[in-house]
Amino acid sequence: MLHLQSASSARWLAQVDRHLDTILIDHAHCEKKAAGTAMNLMFAYPGNEPLCRELAEIVVEELDHFRQVLDLLARRSIRFRALRASNYGRQLNELAHKQDPGRAIDRMLIASLIEARSCERFALLRDHVADRELAEFYGSLFESEARHHSTYVQFARELADGATVDARLSELAASEAEIIERGDSLPRMHS
Amino acid sequence: MLHLQSASSARWLAQVDRHLDTILIDHAHCEKKAAGTAMNLMFAYPGNEPLCRELAEIVVEELDHFRQVLDLLARRSIRFRALRASNYGRQLNELAHKQDPGRAIDRMLIASLIEARSCERFALLRDHVADRELAEFYGSLFESEARHHSTYVQFARELADGATVDARLSELAASEAEIIERGDSLPRMHS
Repeated sequence: MLHLQSASSARWLAQVDRHLDTILIDHAHCEKKAAGTAMNLMFAYPGNEPLCRELAEIVVEELDHFRQVLDLLARRSIRFRALRASNYGRQLNELAHKQDPGRAIDRMLIASLIEARSCERFALLRDHVADRELAEFYGSLFESEARHHSTYVQFARELADGATVDARLSELAASEAEIIERGDSLPRMHS
Repeated sequence: MLHLQSASSARWLAQVDRHLDTILIDHAHCEKKAAGTAMNLMFAYPGNEPLCRELAEIVVEELDHFRQVLDLLARRSIRFRALRASNYGRQLNELAHKQDPGRAIDRMLIASLIEARSCERFALLRDHVADRELAEFYGSLFESEARHHSTYVQFARELADGATVDARLSELAASEAEIIERGDSLPRMHS
């Protein structure tokens, strides 16, 4: 369903166990970045009303998650702060074609894969962390991230024929799996 | 209250009368841009939690207005489309200092002036247009734009002492009045 070509490894769960606070802070930034991605796509396709309406809804949902993560940090007395981003998003975005129509499709599919990986990791966190409040929180976010994944794939399918989109999604998902396999020494939601 | 140094002229109202449909479409883009400005400021000050929380609320409100304007266009069978932006925002943004701390203050004050001018023009539209639905719609938006204006001025006051902020706001408001006086041949919300 999520089009991912790998499962997250025990290496990442070990980072979670050692640096849970940092990963929670990074999660807040990830929600903000997800909102920012949807907003940027609104500016990239200013005349496409149905797309802009759906993207605006995604922005609002991601910012609601952002606020929820900030509230969770506050309840745990974890100080929110700026964090250096992991290499994940940068490496993925470098894979996008530089020109349309390929660029538009790639941006949608890369956004879909980031949502998918978040979704997969939220499910892992839900099942892995002993903390009940956290487990429930990640369970509650799972569904909307899965829906955003599907929405971005659908957007791509409106831009090109299904076979073209599926082939490109498979290519990008293979690269995403390699990036996630290499990981990142910084403990992050996508390290 | 709005710190503007001029009132909009009859020239703009004449543009409204001749090109109301285009101005309504531009209004939708203005709401999207207002959301984008607040989002960009969230990314510019990633460690400032209170600021990021308030900016996220502004993004959500502006996107709600965006959707309301799209609905209004749909009810009137006005096709939403991309529009060339007027020179207003670009000219204002060029006035910002290039480096912090001046840049942060200027970005907040420029955002505050754009909200103020929108607010002033919404009040004019409310009182000028014969169409009752439109008049009520612009009346309903007035209050939130005024509040956003005050919020941005308050943000600036957290970055520097009151006298410095007031002096800079006065300078920028004088430039804003000149820009709006020159106007734009394109019929737009800020022409």
